[in-house]
Amino acid sequence: MAYELHYWPGIQGRGEFVRLALEDAGVDYVDVARLSEADGGGEAALVNWMDFATPPPFAPPILRAKGHTIAQTANILEFIGRHHDLAPPDEDGRMWVNQLQLTLADLVAEVHDTHHPISSSTYYEDQKDAALARAKAFREERMPKYLGYFERILQGNGADGGGLAGAAITYADLSLFQVTRGLQYAFPKAMQALAPKIPGVLLLAEQVQRRRRIASYLKSERRVPFSEEGIFRHYPELDAN
Amino acid sequence: MAYELHYWPGIQGRGEFVRLALEDAGVDYVDVARLSEADGGGEAALVNWMDFATPPPFAPPILRAKGHTIAQTANILEFIGRHHDLAPPDEDGRMWVNQLQLTLADLVAEVHDTHHPISSSTYYEDQKDAALARAKAFREERMPKYLGYFERILQGNGADGGGLAGAAITYADLSLFQVTRGLQYAFPKAMQALAPKIPGVLLLAEQVQRRRRIASYLKSERRVPFSEEGIFRHYPELDAN
Repeated sequence: MAYELHYWPGIQGRGEFVRLALEDAGVDYVDVARLSEADGGGEAALVNWMDFATPPPFAPPILRAKGHTIAQTANILEFIGRHHDLAPPDEDGRMWVNQLQLTLADLVAEVHDTHHPISSSTYYEDQKDAALARAKAFREERMPKYLGYFERILQGNGADGGGLAGAAITYADLSLFQVTRGLQYAFPKAMQALAPKIPGVLLLAEQVQRRRRIASYLKSERRVPFSEEGIFRHYPELDAN
Repeated sequence: MAYELHYWPGIQGRGEFVRLALEDAGVDYVDVARLSEADGGGEAALVNWMDFATPPPFAPPILRAKGHTIAQTANILEFIGRHHDLAPPDEDGRMWVNQLQLTLADLVAEVHDTHHPISSSTYYEDQKDAALARAKAFREERMPKYLGYFERILQGNGADGGGLAGAAITYADLSLFQVTRGLQYAFPKAMQALAPKIPGVLLLAEQVQRRRRIASYLKSERRVPFSEEGIFRHYPELDAN
């Protein structure tokens, strides 16, 4: 039976990390909320479905797979990695990739807060002063620190075609691709300035983008475009001058 | 060989979730950075140690155990849960407890940002206006939403002595205890007002606090007190009026 991904339609969001893993693994899945409303899609149906899902999820994304109902992005990816050969089989390798993914999750939460530092339930325009200050701190301190960390790992691995956990690509590598492209979309000037310091990260993103199934996915309508509704938003005033 | 916890000395922080699990499991461990400097403790030694740890951690806490070097709180707890009977043995149970822990981690990050909504590297006093706004949104929207979610789970389990994952206490229950006590410390008025809506959460916190090893730990010097240096800070102006 096809897996079911339950995530907000219309944005990449955290669901995109799950989509990339499912696509790269060649898994048959349905992106439920993106179906027509007649077929059970849409936001209202998603919210209603969540109220009755067991065990109860706090928020999307949620994956239904092999009889399991799994929420929290890193938790879902750990499942996909284990069942679909996107993580090392040994305990150390699995913990390492999970550790990397959790660090990426922390980074993603900080990216979100560059445009919503006060509250997710009010408009960007109503928290713009705080957003300008938070985005500056993010660009100047946090983004270089996070990407420098991943660069250091890749350099330690030779950065010659291997990923964060060695020669084989894992779900954490797919997620680092998404984060890199997202940061380039949201902060093009700051990322351009940082580029000379993160060659390994940029090379890995290229390598992931060229993987056969990922390349095909990115060209398809299944890939939601970046936009100012998602986590990675391009507000020029939040980028470097 | 004793496990080694590597975490900032002087604060509970995210290290506290690991301490509670190690204490409840009765594991022999050394809280390395809290040793005297002569014995290898202190912040400087921690920072230096991290630079050479393999695989490289992004930030504390880090656990050295059975030859593994593990970072990211939820990742460390998953290891402790699996090896020390603080998580269910089956796949569904393990994923559920991990999912709960990741939701608690999201909550903890939001608590931190109530007093540091702009940047972790500048003082609270220099981001107080944003903190007032963020803390209000947290108290009025996010805190009730998160705690209401855990309440709903506990009510579904009967809330009669069982935890979030059934009768047996897991590391997620220990973490919910810490979060509850932390929120009561930071936002006493808001938590007092919320109390009638979260009887199951408050009962679980009591039950965890009475566990033999936890009770003994909380009375010991190994327990760092809450303070205005940690994640849960009591700034009266950030609490309800």
